[in-house]
Amino acid sequence: MKKGMIKVSVMYPNGEGKTFDMDYYINKHIPLIEALLGDVLKGTEIEKGLGGAAPKSIAPFAGVGNMYFNSVKEFGKAFGPNTEKIMGDLPNFTNIEPVVQISEVLA
Amino acid sequence: MKKGMIKVSVMYPNGEGKTFDMDYYINKHIPLIEALLGDVLKGTEIEKGLGGAAPKSIAPFAGVGNMYFNSVKEFGKAFGPNTEKIMGDLPNFTNIEPVVQISEVLA
Repeated sequence: MKKGMIKVSVMYPNGEGKTFDMDYYINKHIPLIEALLGDVLKGTEIEKGLGGAAPKSIAPFAGVGNMYFNSVKEFGKAFGPNTEKIMGDLPNFTNIEPVVQISEVLA
Repeated sequence: MKKGMIKVSVMYPNGEGKTFDMDYYINKHIPLIEALLGDVLKGTEIEKGLGGAAPKSIAPFAGVGNMYFNSVKEFGKAFGPNTEKIMGDLPNFTNIEPVVQISEVLA
């Protein structure tokens, strides 16, 4: 399982005038990240926001990309030199500035 | 894998004066949810926030609990009657009002 791993979640907040091209995201952006990070990226989980706590409410995040790494150090080493290429692809599918969460998977 | 499943993430935003007892959360609150929801809950992933995008920044969320279900309908049916019991346990470990995201796992 993923217990003990580092999980980096890139979350795209919904909002007025915000756009998010899920098709590009999943078919172009995620494969780009996978190609750039290589073996250091231990797994991904890609989400499409459906809703929030209240019935029929809009999801807080239009999309979320979760990436798993063995350590913060390995993540930094792999992501650092590719940050520009990865961030430079964002305008191709969204006008949202993502929120980034780095977590340890406890269980 | 979890592709096609419904993922419900309960996220506790960090902030000034906010407290979060991770020990209680993982040893009491999560087991409470597991006991109440039973077999309908197909899996969980519990996170402890370490940081954000900027080096040495505070994590957007102190903790995140992810729960997996086969469908939104199954989630609603299992969670609905237990909402009061689950939400009533929150003051025992945090003063944070959580953000809830319901997502479909695309990949």
